[in-house]
Amino acid sequence: MPRYRLLIEYDGAPFVGWQRQANGRSVQQAIEEAVAAFCGETVRIGGAGRTDAGVHASGQVAHLDLARDWPQDTVRDALNAHLRPEPVAILAVARVGDGFDARHSAIRRHYRYLIINRRAPLALERGKAWHVARPLDHAAMHMAAQVLVGKHDFTTFRSTECQSASPVRTLDRLDVSRQGERLVIEASARSFLHNQVRSMVGSLKLVGEGRWSAQDLAAALAARDRRACGPVAPPDGLCLVQVDY
Amino acid sequence: MPRYRLLIEYDGAPFVGWQRQANGRSVQQAIEEAVAAFCGETVRIGGAGRTDAGVHASGQVAHLDLARDWPQDTVRDALNAHLRPEPVAILAVARVGDGFDARHSAIRRHYRYLIINRRAPLALERGKAWHVARPLDHAAMHMAAQVLVGKHDFTTFRSTECQSASPVRTLDRLDVSRQGERLVIEASARSFLHNQVRSMVGSLKLVGEGRWSAQDLAAALAARDRRACGPVAPPDGLCLVQVDY
Repeated sequence: MPRYRLLIEYDGAPFVGWQRQANGRSVQQAIEEAVAAFCGETVRIGGAGRTDAGVHASGQVAHLDLARDWPQDTVRDALNAHLRPEPVAILAVARVGDGFDARHSAIRRHYRYLIINRRAPLALERGKAWHVARPLDHAAMHMAAQVLVGKHDFTTFRSTECQSASPVRTLDRLDVSRQGERLVIEASARSFLHNQVRSMVGSLKLVGEGRWSAQDLAAALAARDRRACGPVAPPDGLCLVQVDY
Repeated sequence: MPRYRLLIEYDGAPFVGWQRQANGRSVQQAIEEAVAAFCGETVRIGGAGRTDAGVHASGQVAHLDLARDWPQDTVRDALNAHLRPEPVAILAVARVGDGFDARHSAIRRHYRYLIINRRAPLALERGKAWHVARPLDHAAMHMAAQVLVGKHDFTTFRSTECQSASPVRTLDRLDVSRQGERLVIEASARSFLHNQVRSMVGSLKLVGEGRWSAQDLAAALAARDRRACGPVAPPDGLCLVQVDY
């Protein structure tokens, strides 16, 4: 059966997350239903990143097998037509070999977290950013973030519900930069633990507020204890922007 | 009475526009009600740009008079508290002299129009951009746009409901640029006619699609006839970004 790779954008707000769950509608389910409406096939699609409820994507990747060899653009346009009016868009479809697996073939995932750091609440970017009213020192956040880069046991920064066998991950990049009131945190790794980015961002916010030093962050990492983590950042600001293969 | 200048951001989607109207809720009304809830005063506020239904602002300016001399930040925080949960944010408040009038003192207004030019529908920026599926030649649009820059009779590019005494305006800037699938049109002038930016953008889209030449755009301008205008662009992509004084 021909295998297709999908590049997907979605607004995570109305969904329980990427993955199918009993308690509500997932992005995966929305796409699987669009596939069924398009060609009558019942498929299970695999995604590169299992984004949580409320987390967005501008570059999620998934694969699926269909019985027929459709033109790539036909699949894209048909799925988009059947996805309407849900805030999910299939940006591109490509035929790939049977060896391609959106999750297991991925060699790097890139997430971006947006904080809007100002006194006034959000209007235009509500639901797309974390509103932090207290001034944040982004340079201190960036410096401290480098403590987390590299291969570490990230037990402190993963959800207690994380199902990964190992808490060890290699974080390739954790950059904090600012443009005016917009503070962007860019995180890249081969793979992330459940809630890892939001856990790191929540702790970095404490650094930005001056409540934690870089040493406090290092101590939290070394503790390998979930209770040492700062409050987890909300999903609104998080977006899966790219997956490399 | 002390006069205050407000810098305002809003998502135009749920409103009938900036200005009070009988047929629904306006941004002006939302702010006036917040003022009443804050200090009990019934005020009428004047805005720099009378944005239409669905048009956004990241830099709208308005002024109002209050009986008391409040600290600027108190006014900002109190209005934001009373505006919740509406998508309107008072970014800043400043005390200004009695001579300041948000509308009449303005010397330049800056609008930005965002087109997302791709085959796939919008998910993350739905309601914040115009989705145009057919490829647009942004260089041709930019070249043609220069025909409109300068002092002209813009009858072709204003709503038939425009209440301005004169159709003559001086357009200082109309730039079209592209970053990937994002096409941005930046328009600056001392003042604009009703629907002028959306009318110009709608006609520029025809140029981008190759259906109009720059000469066609010049002929439409010279016609001074509303019927010569291309289809008006939707409000979603338009944002009042800055007002100069």
